[in-house]
Amino acid sequence: MMQIDLNSDLGEHYGSWRMGDDESMLATVTSANIACGFHAGDPKTAFATLLGAQARGVAVGAHVAYPDLAGFGRRPMVLPADELEADVIYQIGALQALALAAGTEVRYVKPHGALYNSIAFNEAEAAVVIQAIKRVNPGLALVCLAGSPLVEQARAAGLRAVPEAFADRAYEPTGALVSRSEPGAVLHDPELVSERMLQLVEHGTVTARDGSTVSVAAESICVHGDSPDAVRMAQAVRERLLAAGVELANFSGAARP
Amino acid sequence: MMQIDLNSDLGEHYGSWRMGDDESMLATVTSANIACGFHAGDPKTAFATLLGAQARGVAVGAHVAYPDLAGFGRRPMVLPADELEADVIYQIGALQALALAAGTEVRYVKPHGALYNSIAFNEAEAAVVIQAIKRVNPGLALVCLAGSPLVEQARAAGLRAVPEAFADRAYEPTGALVSRSEPGAVLHDPELVSERMLQLVEHGTVTARDGSTVSVAAESICVHGDSPDAVRMAQAVRERLLAAGVELANFSGAARP
Amino acid sequence: MMQIDLNSDLGEHYGSWRMGDDESMLATVTSANIACGFHAGDPKTAFATLLGAQARGVAVGAHVAYPDLAGFGRRPMVLPADELEADVIYQIGALQALALAAGTEVRYVKPHGALYNSIAFNEAEAAVVIQAIKRVNPGLALVCLAGSPLVEQARAAGLRAVPEAFADRAYEPTGALVSRSEPGAVLHDPELVSERMLQLVEHGTVTARDGSTVSVAAESICVHGDSPDAVRMAQAVRERLLAAGVELANFSGAARP
Amino acid sequence: MMQIDLNSDLGEHYGSWRMGDDESMLATVTSANIACGFHAGDPKTAFATLLGAQARGVAVGAHVAYPDLAGFGRRPMVLPADELEADVIYQIGALQALALAAGTEVRYVKPHGALYNSIAFNEAEAAVVIQAIKRVNPGLALVCLAGSPLVEQARAAGLRAVPEAFADRAYEPTGALVSRSEPGAVLHDPELVSERMLQLVEHGTVTARDGSTVSVAAESICVHGDSPDAVRMAQAVRERLLAAGVELANFSGAARP
Repeated sequence: MMQIDLNSDLGEHYGSWRMGDDESMLATVTSANIACGFHAGDPKTAFATLLGAQARGVAVGAHVAYPDLAGFGRRPMVLPADELEADVIYQIGALQALALAAGTEVRYVKPHGALYNSIAFNEAEAAVVIQAIKRVNPGLALVCLAGSPLVEQARAAGLRAVPEAFADRAYEPTGALVSRSEPGAVLHDPELVSERMLQLVEHGTVTARDGSTVSVAAESICVHGDSPDAVRMAQAVRERLLAAGVELANFSGAARP
Repeated sequence: MMQIDLNSDLGEHYGSWRMGDDESMLATVTSANIACGFHAGDPKTAFATLLGAQARGVAVGAHVAYPDLAGFGRRPMVLPADELEADVIYQIGALQALALAAGTEVRYVKPHGALYNSIAFNEAEAAVVIQAIKRVNPGLALVCLAGSPLVEQARAAGLRAVPEAFADRAYEPTGALVSRSEPGAVLHDPELVSERMLQLVEHGTVTARDGSTVSVAAESICVHGDSPDAVRMAQAVRERLLAAGVELANFSGAARP
Repeated sequence: MMQIDLNSDLGEHYGSWRMGDDESMLATVTSANIACGFHAGDPKTAFATLLGAQARGVAVGAHVAYPDLAGFGRRPMVLPADELEADVIYQIGALQALALAAGTEVRYVKPHGALYNSIAFNEAEAAVVIQAIKRVNPGLALVCLAGSPLVEQARAAGLRAVPEAFADRAYEPTGALVSRSEPGAVLHDPELVSERMLQLVEHGTVTARDGSTVSVAAESICVHGDSPDAVRMAQAVRERLLAAGVELANFSGAARP
Repeated sequence: MMQIDLNSDLGEHYGSWRMGDDESMLATVTSANIACGFHAGDPKTAFATLLGAQARGVAVGAHVAYPDLAGFGRRPMVLPADELEADVIYQIGALQALALAAGTEVRYVKPHGALYNSIAFNEAEAAVVIQAIKRVNPGLALVCLAGSPLVEQARAAGLRAVPEAFADRAYEPTGALVSRSEPGAVLHDPELVSERMLQLVEHGTVTARDGSTVSVAAESICVHGDSPDAVRMAQAVRERLLAAGVELANFSGAARP
């Protein structure tokens, strides 16, 4: 039976500000990437999100980021290695304790935003993140960009790497994501997106923007929940995959109840 | 053989700013209360301090605080219970992961500043902190003000409470600290302070400011390291106790090497 | 001709987080209390809001607050006088420069949240805020709680005090606001609220919760825009007042175009 | 009579953390670059520093920076133009109001750290900073790196550009600073540095690291005060220049009393 994971960024409120529809997304995904307070989230928000994930059997990961609340972790930053390593360990640990208190546990790490993009290709910075994870718990998986050098780098370092595809993004014939600065980089049609994701699961391919078919080896699909349209798209992907007999489950093995 | 713990606040740098002489204090104390980033400290500082503590065999505790960098955690704040609980869990967890990466482990929690003062007497707020600690690890000790209601409250809740005395503070005949707003509240003579602490260890008493002798049941002595004079006083206390045959060791049992 | 000011809190986004419907509110009010970055807002948000206010002829004021992003400025804080004074001056100045760049100017100061509530009755703290305003520009008005001691204190100090009423709040027979912790403290019916505010403007009174009529001397009415219902209520108040022939204008004299 | 300005970064404390010897430096320099709270400083610190500068007749400038307390404004950041512009205006305005309250006024802007380095050569980013300054007050001078393209760019835009040399830095034969990553980039001998700065003032030249003489057109000399050695060097430069009959005065014209 075919199986795939659906992951989404959750717990992104901050203080009195809200972002995203966590309740709907917890009913949709199998993995919740939970903000750790550096780009979004605060301890109270993280704890509440972890309780929600625990109640629904959704696996949780630490959505670690550069320290950049004002820029939502989307700004490139160059941190000294010792600082980045400590920042990553700190965030994972904070979430681990909150997860424990919520009756669940952190199973994976997914870097966020600019950090995610940077370590996909920057081997030296990726090595710092990998070392940080291993120092905390070498059993934690690392969710990373399918097709990027990071997948092999993490595996060579002994980590479980989980390559992911992006449901709402167009792909180049090379398997790379079409840059957001290009027209058509982001897809908006839930039906089209759902069919693309079914193809990804069934055949391990996506249709690139030139019409060619390209292999994408993904064990997880990232969906968004930051707008009502995004939630509907995530739900459409979920329904389409279930209807085709795909099992939705976190990559660490435990199926949703 | 008589035994006592010496604890001090460490890891209080922030970014490019320095505070305190951690190197000297790690050579002096048996327990390091390490800032967790809410009132002081940052992940890099905490990690470096933990490595130093590990190398010297100094036990480490999480010095948790209100979220107040600008006020150094010394300002009274009233946080909703769910927020305070999550804040405490978050800080302990962050330090636990950094401690693990540094080859050591968090053995206790010592609240800082305004939070310390508040929960010593505010039972409802103390209950939130106690619950947070128990949810993370009920084996963690709680360092708290000797003579305060918190000592019994924590014990009744099943936590190991470690009452502490303050080396450089004058005491009321009731066993309470003389308020900082009163003249003579803070002691500055290393020799006098050392003799007072020896009396505390040998007889379980201090001489109050009216000359009377008052019982103070303390398992740890808090010394400061934020100025050269403070470091010298801490060293004087250490030397005096050692010279009198007192064993200096963290309350959790492991003697310094 | 009767005249009143309608004010609302605007510019409360932060980084990637949104709060409130500024566009609709700028079309509704005559005065915009603009967050200065301490409880909400950031320079970019403030600048954009100032440009919007300038384009619509809405007067602008500095919505100064305690430094408390995580608590949205709603937490009581006790700051040393020199720190509070500098914080208030800093916020006013930052907004003044942005207002100048946007082609408008800061005409008044309205403290926010916990600071607003505290200085309404705490004379010593109020004196610090008053002095801060006078040091920047003694021509700035101070918007404050109608009926509170602050109104006379500010006037005695030579400031223009602008007492305000709250459209959606119930009043005690004494003229005080019903505490938010009591049932019925917040009103939700736009029609009822509109009629109450018309009575306020025409007769200088509101109907207290015991049915009695109480004098409330207000030169401005505070309306909210943080939810669609709040926006609708603000619009209803505006429409009712206009329909009754009331002129809506900022208290500093310039009518809306 | 020859004249030069001596400037230094001041007001860099934050909360409970201290940095630099402001008192000594205010007795040494003619211009104080005062941190505005984005990389260092807080309103209380800025206000106290402004009062000190006013008392000593030292001219003050806004030391504007990227929003980066944790990195002290030394990390490269790429901000959207509208955000950078608003950030710069906000900082200048905040300092202007504090300066007014302290009985002085902001006469110039000097960008700090990574922002300083970036706009010296990045014309697009420099244009944003120049526009921000002009929108607040086109009479403000801009202190910038002598020999950099920014000097002419600012002048072409109608700003008074004040090129500055660095007392403790070695120069390339091209007039550029020797990169800090190279040996010998930073000079430590107060006597040598003092003679170099006298040559700069008298002849408009410095001796490059290959022994050649290179023209450096500077109207100000930047000295540091973040360590006792730095303070001594700044004092040595001051004494040497005064002994040679050089007048020390802020570039805006007003001589020190």
